[in-house]
Amino acid sequence: MLYSKSFASINREVPKDEMSVNGQLLIKGGFMERVTAGVYAYLPLGWRVYRKIEEIVRKEMLAIAAEEVYFSVLMPKDLWIKSGRWNSFGKILMKLTDENGNEYILGPTHEELAAELARRNIATYRDLPRAIFQIQDKFRDEEEINSGLIKTKEFIMKDLYSFHATQQDLDIFYEEMKKVYSNIFSQCGLKSYIVEAAGGNFTSENVHEFMVKSFGGDDTTVFCELCDFAQNKELKQVKENDRCPYCGGLLKEEKTIEVGNIFKLGTKFSEDAGAFFVDRDGEKKSIFMGCYGIGLSRLMGTIAEIYHDEKGLKWPTSIAPYPVYLIKMNDTDPRVDVRIKKFTDRLYNQLNDRGIEVFYDDRSEVGGGEKIIDADLSGIPYQVVVNAKTLQKDIVEIKSRNTGKTEFLKRSAVASYFKKMIQ
Amino acid sequence: MLYSKSFASINREVPKDEMSVNGQLLIKGGFMERVTAGVYAYLPLGWRVYRKIEEIVRKEMLAIAAEEVYFSVLMPKDLWIKSGRWNSFGKILMKLTDENGNEYILGPTHEELAAELARRNIATYRDLPRAIFQIQDKFRDEEEINSGLIKTKEFIMKDLYSFHATQQDLDIFYEEMKKVYSNIFSQCGLKSYIVEAAGGNFTSENVHEFMVKSFGGDDTTVFCELCDFAQNKELKQVKENDRCPYCGGLLKEEKTIEVGNIFKLGTKFSEDAGAFFVDRDGEKKSIFMGCYGIGLSRLMGTIAEIYHDEKGLKWPTSIAPYPVYLIKMNDTDPRVDVRIKKFTDRLYNQLNDRGIEVFYDDRSEVGGGEKIIDADLSGIPYQVVVNAKTLQKDIVEIKSRNTGKTEFLKRSAVASYFKKMIQ
Repeated sequence: MLYSKSFASINREVPKDEMSVNGQLLIKGGFMERVTAGVYAYLPLGWRVYRKIEEIVRKEMLAIAAEEVYFSVLMPKDLWIKSGRWNSFGKILMKLTDENGNEYILGPTHEELAAELARRNIATYRDLPRAIFQIQDKFRDEEEINSGLIKTKEFIMKDLYSFHATQQDLDIFYEEMKKVYSNIFSQCGLKSYIVEAAGGNFTSENVHEFMVKSFGGDDTTVFCELCDFAQNKELKQVKENDRCPYCGGLLKEEKTIEVGNIFKLGTKFSEDAGAFFVDRDGEKKSIFMGCYGIGLSRLMGTIAEIYHDEKGLKWPTSIAPYPVYLIKMNDTDPRVDVRIKKFTDRLYNQLNDRGIEVFYDDRSEVGGGEKIIDADLSGIPYQVVVNAKTLQKDIVEIKSRNTGKTEFLKRSAVASYFKKMIQ
Repeated sequence: MLYSKSFASINREVPKDEMSVNGQLLIKGGFMERVTAGVYAYLPLGWRVYRKIEEIVRKEMLAIAAEEVYFSVLMPKDLWIKSGRWNSFGKILMKLTDENGNEYILGPTHEELAAELARRNIATYRDLPRAIFQIQDKFRDEEEINSGLIKTKEFIMKDLYSFHATQQDLDIFYEEMKKVYSNIFSQCGLKSYIVEAAGGNFTSENVHEFMVKSFGGDDTTVFCELCDFAQNKELKQVKENDRCPYCGGLLKEEKTIEVGNIFKLGTKFSEDAGAFFVDRDGEKKSIFMGCYGIGLSRLMGTIAEIYHDEKGLKWPTSIAPYPVYLIKMNDTDPRVDVRIKKFTDRLYNQLNDRGIEVFYDDRSEVGGGEKIIDADLSGIPYQVVVNAKTLQKDIVEIKSRNTGKTEFLKRSAVASYFKKMIQ
């Protein structure tokens, strides 16, 4: 992609009341725009980051044999009356009435519809187990919406629903999903902790949240300094300065962001929807359900909260909008400038031909200092600089955005270098 | 994919009041579910078809150097007040008020936000031309919603917005988009006609719609029998039995479905939003906008309206959920049955290894007749049947769902056969 042809420039103004680090950096870097409080639109660079995160998640869901579906945002009132959540879900449920007086909600989550589809599609033990997932906009009328992509009125979520014949089958799948989730977050560059938490609107049992430590976090987690014990402070089962209930180790509070959660729903939603199956022995039984969510837009915001410095973002290579940021430095001598341009254009084409995605700052009207500021803001992991000096030696300068380290390479070696680094 | 592991079976009940051909076939075939009137959820098979259509469209958008973005569904009232469409868009505009009294609409289209983002991101002639597109759920409170995926309250749309410095630049891009659109529909197996129509809520000028002839169509188009002239009857510029205004040829009415439309918006929305740019001569000018829509879910419904027979769907290979439907016929002799299973499993793995997507009916409890009925309903273009007879000769039977023609192939030749046929 040529900078000169892209829709949004990188160094942009941030609304004064955009308070969170991720919100500021993502707007400043040209990744997104605020449409209104708690609602954002993704610009080309931001959408590329999002799509890379989405592909990591999709691949892992398909790998555990889940099938992709796509539910509706609109759900009729009666589905949510059946489950009791039309009233109990609280103020964050967004409701709507159409011209004919029909009432709907905008899905904040989809257990009701998942259970209803299970009712229609699962008849016998032969139809179990099953897992379906979707990636879709969700809507919640959140009040605290000044945390960038961490908490918004409209967000993108991957939600998976599992259907099992027995509690034991559900338990096994649930443990598998723990590993899958940790693996996903790790691919996105995040160390996640599995934390006990309250089920809230979903189940009266405790559930597990995947937490990432971050100063910008809106959750507080109590960690044991010795063992794996970790609990959302909202549970209030442990008090500050108390000892770990498992090993007696010291406890410590940290600010965290919840990037995913998994719930054993049991038979509540399937019974509300009338989703039963006939077992091998001919007996009618309730389907055991689980649900497994990852807020994909929130995940993007969380990565931005963690991967940055004072100059801007620092994306992990796996989800960077492009791995390579190519910079042509302009020269005051027009003959030299033409030669720099030719050299850089050729390198751009070579890298593209080798399947390496490059964002190329080819702008002729912008100075070198500004170009480096933009490159740093973008958070793209490798900056490749071509100027009069490097041109003379037929080399390029490669700088790692992460480590700040610089090295010089022959032009002919650049494509192979990145083929090795990016993977 | 193994039939025995998939979430939805293929031969299903259709709600009695589902009137349209596409709605009936897509529900019966296990492609989607009706959530409520005018709202559908996609099941795994249906979502695969949708995703193939989406990829065709995305590829063509990127090929004309448009950048992918993702707008919000929620838009604040003031954006739509500025354009005047808060009131003028009519009853189909879905409105919502949050807990704090803020009013929003659920985007039925996104010209306002596109213009607003142009205002923020386009400053000078250097920032033009630009084109951005998104693929997203749209919402319209349609009254006539008994046409399956053709007209729904919630649908998926690709909408592209172009920004140009002059009317002439817009005109050139607009003509290019005509070709791109015809090409997209042709890749989806549809012959489309470019038809003059009224701009409705978008522009007072005439626009172009892409129409596909279909008995199930909700539009009527007047075609000239001699030249290319075609006009949406709603324009009322030609009367029945009149002659073509261009060539004097006879005119004929046909039922059509609109699968896409392109609009020259001119400067209306950019001026409402205050989206100007500074020209080479330092003058402040209005940005010329165009918009270009394709209803992706409607496109899927249209293909279903056209590609079917009395036995079910007949997907074009380019967008079929799988190109190959592999059927293991069960045998009453258990020893033979085991050998058939081994043979078919091996073929399934071979095809997968060669990158050929296969839906494999491996069910042991279902008879051959039922399996063929399911295969026909699914519309998958090639049925590969293995039974005791073919097993003995180490061959398989391949039947084209489209032509009904049958041929026999050695097992070793099957993968290469499909490598050639599918592409």
